[in-house]
Amino acid sequence: MIRSRSVQVLVLLVSTTALTFAQTKPRARDLGVPFDGTPGPNNAITDVKGVEVGHTTLISGAGKLKVGEGPVRTGVTAVLPRGKESKDAVFGAWFTLNGNGEMTGTTWVEDSGFVDGPIMITNTHSVGVVRDAVIAWKVKRGKPDMEGYWWSLPVVAETWDGYLNDINGFHVKPEHAFHALDSAHTGAVEEGNVGGGTGMICNEFKGGIGTASRVLDAKSGGYTVGVLVQCNYGQRDQLRIAGVPVGREIPEHTVWKDDVGSIIIVVATDAPIIPTQLKRIARKASLGLGRNGSFSGDGSGDIFIAFSTANPEAASPKGIHDLKMVPNDQLDPLFLATVQATEEAVINAMVAAETMTGVNDRTVIALPHDKLREVLKKYNRLTK
Amino acid sequence: MIRSRSVQVLVLLVSTTALTFAQTKPRARDLGVPFDGTPGPNNAITDVKGVEVGHTTLISGAGKLKVGEGPVRTGVTAVLPRGKESKDAVFGAWFTLNGNGEMTGTTWVEDSGFVDGPIMITNTHSVGVVRDAVIAWKVKRGKPDMEGYWWSLPVVAETWDGYLNDINGFHVKPEHAFHALDSAHTGAVEEGNVGGGTGMICNEFKGGIGTASRVLDAKSGGYTVGVLVQCNYGQRDQLRIAGVPVGREIPEHTVWKDDVGSIIIVVATDAPIIPTQLKRIARKASLGLGRNGSFSGDGSGDIFIAFSTANPEAASPKGIHDLKMVPNDQLDPLFLATVQATEEAVINAMVAAETMTGVNDRTVIALPHDKLREVLKKYNRLTK
Amino acid sequence: MIRSRSVQVLVLLVSTTALTFAQTKPRARDLGVPFDGTPGPNNAITDVKGVEVGHTTLISGAGKLKVGEGPVRTGVTAVLPRGKESKDAVFGAWFTLNGNGEMTGTTWVEDSGFVDGPIMITNTHSVGVVRDAVIAWKVKRGKPDMEGYWWSLPVVAETWDGYLNDINGFHVKPEHAFHALDSAHTGAVEEGNVGGGTGMICNEFKGGIGTASRVLDAKSGGYTVGVLVQCNYGQRDQLRIAGVPVGREIPEHTVWKDDVGSIIIVVATDAPIIPTQLKRIARKASLGLGRNGSFSGDGSGDIFIAFSTANPEAASPKGIHDLKMVPNDQLDPLFLATVQATEEAVINAMVAAETMTGVNDRTVIALPHDKLREVLKKYNRLTK
Amino acid sequence: MIRSRSVQVLVLLVSTTALTFAQTKPRARDLGVPFDGTPGPNNAITDVKGVEVGHTTLISGAGKLKVGEGPVRTGVTAVLPRGKESKDAVFGAWFTLNGNGEMTGTTWVEDSGFVDGPIMITNTHSVGVVRDAVIAWKVKRGKPDMEGYWWSLPVVAETWDGYLNDINGFHVKPEHAFHALDSAHTGAVEEGNVGGGTGMICNEFKGGIGTASRVLDAKSGGYTVGVLVQCNYGQRDQLRIAGVPVGREIPEHTVWKDDVGSIIIVVATDAPIIPTQLKRIARKASLGLGRNGSFSGDGSGDIFIAFSTANPEAASPKGIHDLKMVPNDQLDPLFLATVQATEEAVINAMVAAETMTGVNDRTVIALPHDKLREVLKKYNRLTK
Repeated sequence: MIRSRSVQVLVLLVSTTALTFAQTKPRARDLGVPFDGTPGPNNAITDVKGVEVGHTTLISGAGKLKVGEGPVRTGVTAVLPRGKESKDAVFGAWFTLNGNGEMTGTTWVEDSGFVDGPIMITNTHSVGVVRDAVIAWKVKRGKPDMEGYWWSLPVVAETWDGYLNDINGFHVKPEHAFHALDSAHTGAVEEGNVGGGTGMICNEFKGGIGTASRVLDAKSGGYTVGVLVQCNYGQRDQLRIAGVPVGREIPEHTVWKDDVGSIIIVVATDAPIIPTQLKRIARKASLGLGRNGSFSGDGSGDIFIAFSTANPEAASPKGIHDLKMVPNDQLDPLFLATVQATEEAVINAMVAAETMTGVNDRTVIALPHDKLREVLKKYNRLTK
Repeated sequence: MIRSRSVQVLVLLVSTTALTFAQTKPRARDLGVPFDGTPGPNNAITDVKGVEVGHTTLISGAGKLKVGEGPVRTGVTAVLPRGKESKDAVFGAWFTLNGNGEMTGTTWVEDSGFVDGPIMITNTHSVGVVRDAVIAWKVKRGKPDMEGYWWSLPVVAETWDGYLNDINGFHVKPEHAFHALDSAHTGAVEEGNVGGGTGMICNEFKGGIGTASRVLDAKSGGYTVGVLVQCNYGQRDQLRIAGVPVGREIPEHTVWKDDVGSIIIVVATDAPIIPTQLKRIARKASLGLGRNGSFSGDGSGDIFIAFSTANPEAASPKGIHDLKMVPNDQLDPLFLATVQATEEAVINAMVAAETMTGVNDRTVIALPHDKLREVLKKYNRLTK
Repeated sequence: MIRSRSVQVLVLLVSTTALTFAQTKPRARDLGVPFDGTPGPNNAITDVKGVEVGHTTLISGAGKLKVGEGPVRTGVTAVLPRGKESKDAVFGAWFTLNGNGEMTGTTWVEDSGFVDGPIMITNTHSVGVVRDAVIAWKVKRGKPDMEGYWWSLPVVAETWDGYLNDINGFHVKPEHAFHALDSAHTGAVEEGNVGGGTGMICNEFKGGIGTASRVLDAKSGGYTVGVLVQCNYGQRDQLRIAGVPVGREIPEHTVWKDDVGSIIIVVATDAPIIPTQLKRIARKASLGLGRNGSFSGDGSGDIFIAFSTANPEAASPKGIHDLKMVPNDQLDPLFLATVQATEEAVINAMVAAETMTGVNDRTVIALPHDKLREVLKKYNRLTK
Repeated sequence: MIRSRSVQVLVLLVSTTALTFAQTKPRARDLGVPFDGTPGPNNAITDVKGVEVGHTTLISGAGKLKVGEGPVRTGVTAVLPRGKESKDAVFGAWFTLNGNGEMTGTTWVEDSGFVDGPIMITNTHSVGVVRDAVIAWKVKRGKPDMEGYWWSLPVVAETWDGYLNDINGFHVKPEHAFHALDSAHTGAVEEGNVGGGTGMICNEFKGGIGTASRVLDAKSGGYTVGVLVQCNYGQRDQLRIAGVPVGREIPEHTVWKDDVGSIIIVVATDAPIIPTQLKRIARKASLGLGRNGSFSGDGSGDIFIAFSTANPEAASPKGIHDLKMVPNDQLDPLFLATVQATEEAVINAMVAAETMTGVNDRTVIALPHDKLREVLKKYNRLTK
């Protein structure tokens, strides 16, 4: 069966990539795109200590669409706030800029103030299989759930990859969710055509997974903010990079007339902030998109989730918990870092993604690096 | 395989029940419980023209829990706002009284103002399989989705049946969702231990599916409001029926100390109201629960969705739509009907449910009809 | 000028009342109404340590309405979460069951998680004067505001008393807000026709201010929950007291056909809970209204605010704060206490209020105590 | 008394300005700032037919702050969705990007879906007086309110002008609100140091009132979207204009270290859209701020309200209303217009505002037009 084979191949590919990624592929800053703020060592969500990211990438088949057979251009990405060995929840909150999408589990995130378990991202039509797989994965790993006495309300988000992927073929299976979870790791994060981002399109360039981080200075607490996006939104002519109208300067090979895409944004921090504050953080991600020119069209599922790895054991059912909280008056550096890291993560996704051909031989081009540099130079914004 | 066999049996059982239900089983009013307002002909959500309800009921096995083998006490319920043949969405809105639960698709319900497709209810750990199955069912039935160019964000809700059901056995399969959809019908609605409600517990009596309706008088527009609940919440000693402290008067065979359950409430109306107004309707369902004594505990997923079957074609992408709207100043009869029908639907669920023995031979008793009548009489509230 | 004189009189009256109130007026429990749970020593919001309540009651004139001259039946109530000497904010959150009303300051309550300053309640058309007066009162009392460098966003709520009061005469002046603040006290709270509640109507009986409290048992933390309501909602025939259809049994002297009123509910607790949790507390107040039969009509401004006096200094702009938090899993006793205290506070308001004649000689009768006892007896619910 | 005199002067000034404004002052486009989209004839919110805007501008005194005496640099702006002669409400909705501010009346906007009456903007400490004045203004003008039988819940928003204005002097009086309402007019809108914007600061340049509009092409329905802002937010070094880092290039005469300001955004359209859709419009305004570099700091009250002048009489209490609705799938041009007009209105506010000296001789400089042109040229973005 084609799909299984491709999975095997891709699993190997992903693992290899994980080891060598940072050395071999330029990122947006490497190309001379100016960004504000100081990134962490990996310029990735994993700069927030404890956060792990894993991908399952499914690529197989080519040519004409046969529903159920392919071509397949999809996958699953897992973000584990405290890593895969922890059963401890994190404080969390979410926000919707435009709601044409799905993020399961948010009703309880909203009311409990916690994200309990991993945050998964996949394609629109595979949210269900991934959701139930997260429960199965938890059941498999833990005694307390064996009898099912405690329930699970997993967080699974999506964007739509049906332009390149046989989305109605339902190619994501439980084992692909398990693999994304089991292969999650700290350190550099694979970007571009990987995981849930495999078949995604961003500003009519090839999109996918992108990430970035910011480290605050000591007087602002020295906290880290990390962002990971699954980037699938936008019209070419709206795209700004570092304020420069890059989209209009590269009008070639557009994909469609309408903004039919979406973006999932995950914001992580180690700052000790409570859910009310995390909700504000999630909302600020909108401003990063604003900087890049998004107008968040009707077809967009622009859904953001933020969590803090501080305050371990706050979800424990027993005792009275001791918490730490950054005062509201000191949140500005975290807000600004969120905006900046979101802005950069989206561009990183486009810079990392490679030209892909999928269903019915449709091709979506990668953002051309040389051309990007030329345009930045034209507008006096190239940094190197 | 035990499970498949039981499904077959139950499908037959359900169909039979559908034909004869109204005649053979008493409902709360038949027992002399006083309720206000005028119900429709079926005193059911299906009194709202076009609404169809289908159930798949899965009951098999007995004795000690073997995860993956049973015992199975679960199912799927489908509510189709315009019936299974329609592809037209309805105006809709949702509300959470307590968020320890899941209702997928609500992000887009909130932002679009529409419920597009069926509303499904199942157990907590089967939300995913039912969700993707709804997409598959749509794909199977329709041309426009074949290439996956338009996405689906199905509405699937849940309550937790792990006290009686092998919930971590994941016994709900796509075909069970298909069956609930395909067997949906107008007319009398099966209540009690059926569909998603099969293994549910309400105020420590056996719970499940319940329904009720109200028809407004002509000067209030003559509209119908129908409610369907999957009822799985509550502590015995809080239960009030028609204001009478029935729970305390029947203290036998309680189940647990804590309110660990949930309730999903679906409110349908044919009144031409817009999403802003439907959100208010959804919120008012809380007051029906209040009448019955609920305090909506931390473990509750009390999630409500309301829709209006008026204004067909409002979701069509083309043209400028002509809508009808009841003024806000005329909403009171609809609000009151929602409260009343919710109050009654919950009691109907308990009255219809039968004593059930499930996982590890745990038994949950039905609300004893004779004892209920005795208590109502003691408090001078028995109507017949 | 009639108004000024009446204010003087009333200020004296209020002070006197404060000293003797508890001894001389029966409350709902004294009349034999059954309520669950254990109240605190005053059965009042002031049982939460630190909370102070003050009223300014304005009653003057009689007969035909002359806008600007009277009759006047209105006032201001102040709830100070930490008393009038504190400048420390409290964690807070709010909820709207039906939004036909005003509570200023809530945008920042929502986003900051704090209530900073007093919670004021008055009539609909005096929200503005009271709001600015709170700022003036703060400016007068404190150095840091002198230059206006820090702003204030006071919380002021209202219900509509225009049936009995010359509401368009704008009789509430800044000094009335000051007096309510300056006269705030701990201990017993005046109920009925006082403060903001002076001219209010509840279930077509005379309404106004009511309060109640619950003390949790030691194993639930021993916390106190206090509720204060300004009660101005409801149709007579919907009124249930302790589940008994009292409204229908006392059909005399109803006021109007429609539910045009509102209710403001303030919930206080000393339990260390964070804003996310307080929002849930605020929402649960709905269920107390549900028990009393409300359907929350279109004209209702049913707006609730909850705060916790724990975690002092959490709003301080400096440092990293140490907080305490009750786990979500232990919130149920607080939820139940909120529902119970809300249920009782509303009945207390009606029991305390006295028949009042106002604008154009309109009279609204008090809930007749003897008749209430008769009805409770008829339905076997009288406790003494 | 100095203040009264200055009001007289200013009223004359405002009237004069209204007649000559368009001819004499350059706007952002006139300076060569590139913006997308097609503005209406006035490039103002008043391009939406029926919308009227009025200002009262209060400037008096100089030198050292004496609370209650001045210096005064404040005012009131009124936006009347259907003009001052209409009593008809408009469909409306609101959104908060950061909640450190006030907009009264929003609880009922949210729940009713209507904005009933004018939208007023003033300084933080004058919200109350303006709110009650709107009621008084309505009472004065209309029979139905004479007895106060119907209530009013005015929409009044604010930003904080205490850096230049004696905000704790409470210089805004009811007659200033009346004047803003009574002088409201169609046509060109005064920008900069006028009305509620008189003492405001934006990105550490002088800010205030700004406006812009967009007209959709015929195939998008030909609708108009107009935006008016009271602009008081932002740090200099974050400011981008047309994507160019203007703030960093003009580092002179900054005001403070922190983002302590706010922005109120009013979006008007004649497109027939319902409240659910207007809420989305209001939310999109965030992206216009994002384009200009805002990160929406903790101290910001970034509160937005949107309304549609279509569907007259939808708020009438009688009958069943006929509405028109643009399908969700056709909203993108409206979303984009909202983002574009917001982006431009903020820049227009800064371009129009003039250097001002206020309390304690503090001076805030205007955005220097020549320098702005230089910077745009440096980054190859100057259009003329």
